Amino acid sequence: MTTDTETVHRIPPQSGTGFRLRRGEVLVVIDALGEQVSDLMAFAEDNHAEWLSSGRTFDYNETIYLTTGHVLYSNRSRPMFTLLRDDVGRHDFLLTPCSTETFELLYPPGTAEGHPSCFGNLVQAFAPFGIQPDQIPTTLNIFMNVLVGQDGRVNIAPPVSTAGQRLELRAEMDLIVGLTACSAEGSNNGTFKPIDYQIRRAQE
Amino acid sequence: MTTDTETVHRIPPQSGTGFRLRRGEVLVVIDALGEQVSDLMAFAEDNHAEWLSSGRTFDYNETIYLTTGHVLYSNRSRPMFTLLRDDVGRHDFLLTPCSTETFELLYPPGTAEGHPSCFGNLVQAFAPFGIQPDQIPTTLNIFMNVLVGQDGRVNIAPPVSTAGQRLELRAEMDLIVGLTACSAEGSNNGTFKPIDYQIRRAQE
Repeated sequence: MTTDTETVHRIPPQSGTGFRLRRGEVLVVIDALGEQVSDLMAFAEDNHAEWLSSGRTFDYNETIYLTTGHVLYSNRSRPMFTLLRDDVGRHDFLLTPCSTETFELLYPPGTAEGHPSCFGNLVQAFAPFGIQPDQIPTTLNIFMNVLVGQDGRVNIAPPVSTAGQRLELRAEMDLIVGLTACSAEGSNNGTFKPIDYQIRRAQE
Repeated sequence: MTTDTETVHRIPPQSGTGFRLRRGEVLVVIDALGEQVSDLMAFAEDNHAEWLSSGRTFDYNETIYLTTGHVLYSNRSRPMFTLLRDDVGRHDFLLTPCSTETFELLYPPGTAEGHPSCFGNLVQAFAPFGIQPDQIPTTLNIFMNVLVGQDGRVNIAPPVSTAGQRLELRAEMDLIVGLTACSAEGSNNGTFKPIDYQIRRAQE
């Protein structure tokens, strides 16, 4: 089921995918054309009640900006990923995946109807694995550029990623992963682009 | 089952409690002695798969610092609470409740063993309602003073709350609420104090 080693998979614009990732394998997320965002969520393969936790990750790394060397933790405080290589240095772990309600509440009237969303795409990506919509928490929004002011105000700026830049994440346990090419105009400077990814086989 | 109206309940140091809160009722959380933190989590009473979401709340309020007038949202993007009165103006919604692993990873060796934790206290508070430990996500850490640097670094400073200051939250749906008097030395300037709370009956 896993690893077409070195094969580059393409996630078309405004869509998503789900797959297994074995402990030790490296997920390479590539911003194929630049300025695109990819929302990632993961669950332990052997227990879907264990999920990637923004709060535990912020706590134990003592930062909201994760980059090379940081470990991403589950709600059970166990390592899920280690970030091995980060070409960009700016990702978001504060905000939830865009959803129908995001477009209703934050976008001009009429935007929401029929609009694809990362939440909807993750729901579809996880459905074959038996993971329910309500289980999807705050996602790691790779390449998303969220600035936080001294007053706490959140400002979504265009990604600083350029074509071909990547984030490499090593799985620290067997995982079910959902990954999107973001659907929200506000996150990727008004463009919709694909996201590429590779799975590198475990070295050890 | 609800509302000893106007009665002040005391949560002893390093402990927690769970209760029902009806739509329209106002939960008043009071820092009885000053410089203490209270972790809050809530679930919809009629569906425990609906929970208070830091990510949806940050998204829709466009800030990480919540205060008077802000609405706190569930993972289903529905209002759970409205903040009616905030005497303090600084609360945290980034970090997870302190747990055994918090004390293992972030505190001096030997701290963790037998140490009470907000996570453990919330687990006990929610158990009678059939809510499982794995369902507890990032909590609203009332009165917790978490500063975020321009570089994203998270710094936990002493609360700025003084004795008797309060946060008032109106329930926007029927809820199960868990609430603690924080157990972590690092959050409350090395002291362990109680937290008081009141439930005001719905006016309308």
